[in-house]
Amino acid sequence: MAARKPRNKVNKLKIIPLGGLGEIGKNMTVFEYENEILIVDCGLAFPDDDMLGIDIVIPDITYLRRNVQKIKGIVLTHGHEDHIGALPYVLQEINVPIYGTKLTLGLVENKLREHRLLRTTKRNCVTQGQTVKIGNNFNVEFIRTNHSIADAVALAITTPAGVVVHSGDFKIDYTPIRGEMIDLPRFAALGQKGVLALLADSTNVEKPGYTPTERLVAQRFDDIFSSKLDQRIMVATFASNVDRVQQIIDSAHKFNRKVAVIGRSMVNVVKTASELGYLDIPKNILIDINAVNRYKDGQVAIIMTGSQGEPMAALSRMARSEHRQVEIKQGDVIILSSTPIPGNEKTVAEVVNDLFKKGAEVIRDDTHVSGHAAEEELKLFHSLVKPKFFMPAHGEYRHLHKHAELAMELGMRRKDIAIASIGEVYELTHNTCRLVGTVPSGNVLVDGLGVGDVGNIVLRDRRHLSQDGLLVIVITLQKNSGVVVAGPDIVSRGFVYVRESENLMDEAKKVVRKSLDRCESKQIKEWSQIKSIVRDDLREFVWQKTKRSPMILPIIMEV
Amino acid sequence: MAARKPRNKVNKLKIIPLGGLGEIGKNMTVFEYENEILIVDCGLAFPDDDMLGIDIVIPDITYLRRNVQKIKGIVLTHGHEDHIGALPYVLQEINVPIYGTKLTLGLVENKLREHRLLRTTKRNCVTQGQTVKIGNNFNVEFIRTNHSIADAVALAITTPAGVVVHSGDFKIDYTPIRGEMIDLPRFAALGQKGVLALLADSTNVEKPGYTPTERLVAQRFDDIFSSKLDQRIMVATFASNVDRVQQIIDSAHKFNRKVAVIGRSMVNVVKTASELGYLDIPKNILIDINAVNRYKDGQVAIIMTGSQGEPMAALSRMARSEHRQVEIKQGDVIILSSTPIPGNEKTVAEVVNDLFKKGAEVIRDDTHVSGHAAEEELKLFHSLVKPKFFMPAHGEYRHLHKHAELAMELGMRRKDIAIASIGEVYELTHNTCRLVGTVPSGNVLVDGLGVGDVGNIVLRDRRHLSQDGLLVIVITLQKNSGVVVAGPDIVSRGFVYVRESENLMDEAKKVVRKSLDRCESKQIKEWSQIKSIVRDDLREFVWQKTKRSPMILPIIMEV
Repeated sequence: MAARKPRNKVNKLKIIPLGGLGEIGKNMTVFEYENEILIVDCGLAFPDDDMLGIDIVIPDITYLRRNVQKIKGIVLTHGHEDHIGALPYVLQEINVPIYGTKLTLGLVENKLREHRLLRTTKRNCVTQGQTVKIGNNFNVEFIRTNHSIADAVALAITTPAGVVVHSGDFKIDYTPIRGEMIDLPRFAALGQKGVLALLADSTNVEKPGYTPTERLVAQRFDDIFSSKLDQRIMVATFASNVDRVQQIIDSAHKFNRKVAVIGRSMVNVVKTASELGYLDIPKNILIDINAVNRYKDGQVAIIMTGSQGEPMAALSRMARSEHRQVEIKQGDVIILSSTPIPGNEKTVAEVVNDLFKKGAEVIRDDTHVSGHAAEEELKLFHSLVKPKFFMPAHGEYRHLHKHAELAMELGMRRKDIAIASIGEVYELTHNTCRLVGTVPSGNVLVDGLGVGDVGNIVLRDRRHLSQDGLLVIVITLQKNSGVVVAGPDIVSRGFVYVRESENLMDEAKKVVRKSLDRCESKQIKEWSQIKSIVRDDLREFVWQKTKRSPMILPIIMEV
Repeated sequence: MAARKPRNKVNKLKIIPLGGLGEIGKNMTVFEYENEILIVDCGLAFPDDDMLGIDIVIPDITYLRRNVQKIKGIVLTHGHEDHIGALPYVLQEINVPIYGTKLTLGLVENKLREHRLLRTTKRNCVTQGQTVKIGNNFNVEFIRTNHSIADAVALAITTPAGVVVHSGDFKIDYTPIRGEMIDLPRFAALGQKGVLALLADSTNVEKPGYTPTERLVAQRFDDIFSSKLDQRIMVATFASNVDRVQQIIDSAHKFNRKVAVIGRSMVNVVKTASELGYLDIPKNILIDINAVNRYKDGQVAIIMTGSQGEPMAALSRMARSEHRQVEIKQGDVIILSSTPIPGNEKTVAEVVNDLFKKGAEVIRDDTHVSGHAAEEELKLFHSLVKPKFFMPAHGEYRHLHKHAELAMELGMRRKDIAIASIGEVYELTHNTCRLVGTVPSGNVLVDGLGVGDVGNIVLRDRRHLSQDGLLVIVITLQKNSGVVVAGPDIVSRGFVYVRESENLMDEAKKVVRKSLDRCESKQIKEWSQIKSIVRDDLREFVWQKTKRSPMILPIIMEV
């Protein structure tokens, strides 16, 4: 139960988004009441194009690190990477209990095992509909929703300040593939009792109408399978979309095909989901990918990763003829069962072109539905929850903006809507919602084993190197006298094809020699000064000759 | 007239696409009859994401260089960069006459002037409907079409082997903004007389139905202008879309706004187009951008570049608050009058987010129509031209494939359709079309002043550097003895933030020292061998410690 309330005391709840606003992915929201913190979701983002060499992006958790003793737990809404992917990194620093439904925890456990965190992490498995008390101030109800992964939930977080509903990622699917539709009556009941604030998914707010049911895809798959009886069928989709995988297996079963699964994440998810009962796989239908060639084309279906054109995924490798087990051939039918995530359009188009060149038939119309609520679904959701305050969540800035407009169309006042940025602290009482400050927030870049060791300077250097390459100038000086005893030598990489530009390099050496002469005649002995003179002169020369600006790296040795 | 035909002689025409097939942009097609060559278009492409640091891409013209004495001229279909942008580079090597309509040549002349080629290039201005004899074997008729730039033409090239129709980029617009609709009767007449081969625009073959008329945009602009009477209106579009610019000016005029033009290419095109009579600019409507602030918001409209999110263009600079003259403010209306070119989606989305954050209203629905024929228009075009042979042009591979299917739906036989790749030589007689060989073809990369000096090795190095940066190891050895007298020193860039990783660098030095000791004890004195040992040992060490693979560059000096 909530802590006893002293007379006249105003109960204050803080909501601090640390990710997932004004960006894609990296979802994390902090709820703070007095000396207790509850975290909702702990996701990663994929790097932007300008984050060269970066593997993944996780939220800056400086604020959590500073308040580690307050944290009571991390609640997960579903098992997608942008909601669970940062867990292994965060749990390493902040070892708190995690809460999630069965499939969500199943997927989390795969990750924790890889990072050797499984033994040390307390995991609480909840079911849709259950309420769990976390700390003294948070009663968290897990409410069934629909999404492109099974076992997704929204949260109703009851605090002494009031009830906050967090939608998670959701859509309204009246006829889902597995399980039941979103628990609309529960949201209606909460709305009747009074909801202090709503945080809701803005991803598809720009899409008019309703997002179609997942079941539409089942019919489409059946149509394709029934019309391509003699051709090999391969389907690429997101590994995490377990219901989609189920539909492919169902269609394959109906049309007497064996099924092979390719791609590390696809294999993992299929294993976890079927062990936990989220996938019904008919007996003897699965075959090893190496056995595919023992069957006729019309007797196999392949499920694989790579629907986003990821260069190392199964589909892209096949398109480039680099896959060890499967070679695309004339007549193969390839179904892309996903739409490109913004930024991936061109890569996907290239894969499609390559597949066509190999004589494959590529099908990608009506083979996917979104997992996010569109405009009319959001209106329904808002109308049921009827919050006092609204904070658009999960979306780029223009989505948050549009979602705020939608709430106003439904009668909310602009001043009761908070279009937040990450790191902003909103304080809510029973009748106010105010921005009261900010905490550190942002992107922490993960590159290989390094977490946060690649910052702006390193990225700026990578960008510079990527544009025009580099010139290294090495000079060896005599100790004391400062006389040049070896060099200048120039080595270039990524600048210009050297065999064709020997003259340029010879001239460049002359330029450096002149700079060194100038330093000598001016009695300049400070290395940093010499380096800076060499760099400036050479930069000017190279720009005049080539209109390029390679990185110039003078190195001085002393003997 | 065609050369006299000896008895039994078979007239053979070769068609060699050197660009524009299986890719976006870089359009160039070679027609060769006996000892004469005619080139159609000479375009550039913009670099793919993996062509790091590259400015533009032009066709490999090795084949033209080898046959320079045969070339009779370059015919241009319209003034877009992907059809004229490589001219300055090609004309530098191959000085032949060029042919084009007035606006096309106007835009070309701007380029030639910049490259100091204007005086030396023979330019032949033609009008829509005109026929020009080029060499002894080519009679080229310029046929009016519609496209997203004025003065576009298709070509009917009459050769002794037959008539080839090249559509250029086109759409069918019954109500264009300026000039008349595409000359459909002429294509019908050619079809009646007999067309040997058709090359046609495949860009929009995946789009069902018809591409709407440009006039639709005029109505939309008027609606926006009439409903935003007190707000500043800014429109970003392609500079080359002169008709679109006209519509913005018309709407501004109608609603009593002055017009300022921003962006180098926009200013150039407006100047050229109005001088040549392709833009009607009401007197006194244009104002200098610096004068904008002297007017009320409702009294100005700004036309600018940057509709593709190009980072250095006016709109992106404004979105980042880096534009010197214009600052976006609450209530500004920004119209994006173009759809993102594949690959630009994410960049455009980022600009839109930034504009929203500044309180601007961004309008981008129904503010653009395509300049390319959709499925039903292509059917009409094919049905009029009725070619014996068909070569889908202008499109990625999947577009060419789809266009071939469209032709088959209309009754063509698969064997009469050539889905060509660049560099392939097709030989046509009055009743055959065969692939008879290939010529060199591909991408020539332009980086700064360098044309073709950045090849695969340089790009590979840039990619490597961009991912994990580099480590330079410098060692100075004693001449003869080979004893290390200075170093090893290690310098890193783009690898890891050095202050946080001093230990790592110290350990790395130890690893190099060990490698050098091993070389010494094994009497290894060959520099290349020493370098390779150092590189391998260090690579292994760095991978173990960081799971990263920076470029490792050992440099040996000798004193």
